[in-house]
Amino acid sequence: MQLHGKSIIGNELPSAASGNGQTFLAYNPAIGQDLDPVFYEATDADINLAFFCAEKAFDVYRSKSAEEIAGFLNTIAEKIIALGDELITRASAEAGLPTKRLTGERARTVGQLRMFADLVREGSWVEATIDRAQPERKPLPQPDIRRMLIPIGPVAVFGASNFPLAFSVAGGDTASAFAAGNPVIVKAHPAHPGTSEMVARAIVTAAEATGMPAGVFSLLQGTTHELSLKVVRHPVTSAVGFTGSLQGGRAIFDAAAQRPNPIPVFAEMGSVNPVFVLPGALRERGADFAVGLQQSVTLGVGQFCTCPGLVVGLRDAGMTGFKKRIEELAATASPATMLHPGILSAYDEGVRRLERTNGVETLKSRVAADAGKTEAGPAVFITDSNTLLKHKELTHEVFGPSTLIVMCDSREEMLRVARELEGHLTATIHGTTTELEEFRDLIELLQKKVGRLVFNGFPTGVEVCAAMHHGGPYPATTDVRATSVGAYAIKRFARPVCFQNSPQAILPVELQDKNHRNIWRVVDNQLTKDDC
Amino acid sequence: MQLHGKSIIGNELPSAASGNGQTFLAYNPAIGQDLDPVFYEATDADINLAFFCAEKAFDVYRSKSAEEIAGFLNTIAEKIIALGDELITRASAEAGLPTKRLTGERARTVGQLRMFADLVREGSWVEATIDRAQPERKPLPQPDIRRMLIPIGPVAVFGASNFPLAFSVAGGDTASAFAAGNPVIVKAHPAHPGTSEMVARAIVTAAEATGMPAGVFSLLQGTTHELSLKVVRHPVTSAVGFTGSLQGGRAIFDAAAQRPNPIPVFAEMGSVNPVFVLPGALRERGADFAVGLQQSVTLGVGQFCTCPGLVVGLRDAGMTGFKKRIEELAATASPATMLHPGILSAYDEGVRRLERTNGVETLKSRVAADAGKTEAGPAVFITDSNTLLKHKELTHEVFGPSTLIVMCDSREEMLRVARELEGHLTATIHGTTTELEEFRDLIELLQKKVGRLVFNGFPTGVEVCAAMHHGGPYPATTDVRATSVGAYAIKRFARPVCFQNSPQAILPVELQDKNHRNIWRVVDNQLTKDDC
Repeated sequence: MQLHGKSIIGNELPSAASGNGQTFLAYNPAIGQDLDPVFYEATDADINLAFFCAEKAFDVYRSKSAEEIAGFLNTIAEKIIALGDELITRASAEAGLPTKRLTGERARTVGQLRMFADLVREGSWVEATIDRAQPERKPLPQPDIRRMLIPIGPVAVFGASNFPLAFSVAGGDTASAFAAGNPVIVKAHPAHPGTSEMVARAIVTAAEATGMPAGVFSLLQGTTHELSLKVVRHPVTSAVGFTGSLQGGRAIFDAAAQRPNPIPVFAEMGSVNPVFVLPGALRERGADFAVGLQQSVTLGVGQFCTCPGLVVGLRDAGMTGFKKRIEELAATASPATMLHPGILSAYDEGVRRLERTNGVETLKSRVAADAGKTEAGPAVFITDSNTLLKHKELTHEVFGPSTLIVMCDSREEMLRVARELEGHLTATIHGTTTELEEFRDLIELLQKKVGRLVFNGFPTGVEVCAAMHHGGPYPATTDVRATSVGAYAIKRFARPVCFQNSPQAILPVELQDKNHRNIWRVVDNQLTKDDC
Repeated sequence: MQLHGKSIIGNELPSAASGNGQTFLAYNPAIGQDLDPVFYEATDADINLAFFCAEKAFDVYRSKSAEEIAGFLNTIAEKIIALGDELITRASAEAGLPTKRLTGERARTVGQLRMFADLVREGSWVEATIDRAQPERKPLPQPDIRRMLIPIGPVAVFGASNFPLAFSVAGGDTASAFAAGNPVIVKAHPAHPGTSEMVARAIVTAAEATGMPAGVFSLLQGTTHELSLKVVRHPVTSAVGFTGSLQGGRAIFDAAAQRPNPIPVFAEMGSVNPVFVLPGALRERGADFAVGLQQSVTLGVGQFCTCPGLVVGLRDAGMTGFKKRIEELAATASPATMLHPGILSAYDEGVRRLERTNGVETLKSRVAADAGKTEAGPAVFITDSNTLLKHKELTHEVFGPSTLIVMCDSREEMLRVARELEGHLTATIHGTTTELEEFRDLIELLQKKVGRLVFNGFPTGVEVCAAMHHGGPYPATTDVRATSVGAYAIKRFARPVCFQNSPQAILPVELQDKNHRNIWRVVDNQLTKDDC
């Protein structure tokens, strides 16, 4: 595929005249070289056109049947697969990630699209709820009321650099927004504009093949914060999906909250994902724990939002042994390519901040690897709970393969560390069955701090399924009630509407007396698939 | 009951020492006189104590069983009933509302508490979702993942002046926040501090009778914006429920969004609730429509968030007849007491703004009634669609019994008016069966603008039931995805958490293999009541 480097709007390229001359290049971090072709910064005219088309497309797209939307999603999956090795090669060049990892990520991306297609086809997600009229009720008759979820409106999606496929142009945010019946405008991540263009063209091809309106999807290319803020502030934008840094997510959240009409922002941001390890678990399987942790920390060069950056244990022989093992493992770890130079320098800065903190001992600093290859190695630090509690910034994310081990002198100190945590995506507890029962208070505490509790495992590897919750209290996300992974992600981009005493013919098919779609509905407070 | 006039914190009065000397009085708008006793402004110490107690209480309250929480809610209902006529008398004195209306409102308040008790007991609202482990899955085994909703944390509730019972201290926000497992801190509305104290004492008595922790509920008395903002900004506040003006709701939303950790604000604010009336409906039942509209507009002196303030029709004989009828009805309407002088003067100002707008004709101005009795009569205006579209402020709420009739020269103009609407709680369409089919595009348009569509009825009278949606796009609310009335209101104050590979004994009862509570759960993508 010959990349053209332009934004894609309403199933077409923007006119050549719309360029403002600003261009940028993709960069291959593994070899330290710019990549062809030139990419063009989206202009104000491009943004306005994308939203104009999205608004027009919304009226058509929202009335598509579930079957049609499912067909669109499945066709996007097909068209992404049809991009073949070329997509993997380009993504690998732009993100410095191995092709095996990207092949897996493509499978996940396609799997997500198909999961949402199945969800839409099954149909119960709309929460159809019917309270039938009671004309005889005293003192007043009850009217007929019927409620369901409908699409929220055009959704702006900001892709993440660390998942150029699964959290990017056709990632979970886009898939769930489409599934709920909304047009999507993606602001491509400037670290992988070529990958973005390829996937965007697959979406456009799928939209054309399945008769979806022009404007159901647009891709805006660009590198500036101003572009992002303009997208968030555009009057047509009805909701925002974002995956990235705390700084970026907060800026977008603030812009959305300051709009004349505020809109919801679902930003999934940084997280340190604390791991609590109890003495019995270390006694039973200390060596396995160290190896598992090291793998989880260094997976994808630590560039996962679920990377465990904090390990909390009780100061005893087991923890001393663990410290020794993790030091050994880190010493043998080889450096690897990070996503882009900006990520590498932020990692460097984070590691230096830890090195400089009084009371923090450096067990292994990151190898000063080949800067031309954007390489970094793991870093390991150790401290005690008092130092951690004194220096709150030690619990802030260092994006990359860095871990801080925290020694507590007592169970109470461990609870205090848990109590002082901010919001995280996950917390992990390693313990024997007896210990977990004994540490119920710790588990209760952690429930208040995170979105997912992992037992005797590691937080990396987020299963895409109905029960997954990938979210958590701020600063893990800007909306503690939302998940960006799994079936419930669709609820972010829908909102309820209810109909009072509507004629049958006017009601959406999901709310008519006859249960045409055979979906689960709540009728007069009973969950049922029966007709009314 | 002897009122003491103080805030109520952690089931106790704040110590006398905590007062800062600032006091205020309630006011009887119907007779223009202050009411005894003196009320004390909550101090910073009171606020901090309330949140300190709430945070402590949260750990106890969140682990109460569904049965215990249901018992608490039902006991609150009982204790409110036990307040007897004294409550109605005080509420009537403070709000200027007739006792019959308040008796009905009490029934609704008690009904809401019992509805949430039933909902909690039934238990399916927690959205328990289980994906069982698949150890044999390739390339990677699937872990066991189980998700459910848990309480969000201490909730701050701001009561409305227009519903001193149903949207106040023990109103829908408090009931749903308690039901979800959260402590509640109510900032009492300064227009009915005595009613607030009585209901708060009923809640405290219920908490004591059912063994709920001190701090599960607090009431803060006060009149200042600073107090409200301190409550919103307090680090322990996890979510906010608000019913009131756009100005007040937006100030609270902004304060919450600017916190170091933003929290959700569910503010239900102003709305004009447009009514579209089609020619056939006017031909068939024009007289009834006029009477029904007049009743809906003047119900409770127009002091409902669902009061219909805009009537849009096509300029024809039917509309001319309707205009005449509504003029006649308004002429005979007698003035009535509004909630408080502040509401009256805002109504006056709104009416004068309409009177002064070029292109708006005054059919009936509000009677300059007895200001000492805080009285106002209905006001009726008429204009054309061009004037309306030119003066956006004409679609802003005038809180009180004011209506603006809008004449459109064509169907297209009517659609244009609909297209230009901001968010509203409701829209109403009157039409014959054939007309409704013909105006599908209008209905589609209105769906995008409101939370509830009423057919051939009037928007006042919000049914409390599972299918009710009382919400809508901004500025009707600050969260288009939430309802403040009906069963789904509980979802505002809950958030998901998931457990990965948790031992059975650690899991909440709702997520264990055995379905102890016999609730609906999604197990491996199938809705079922079976055990795993």
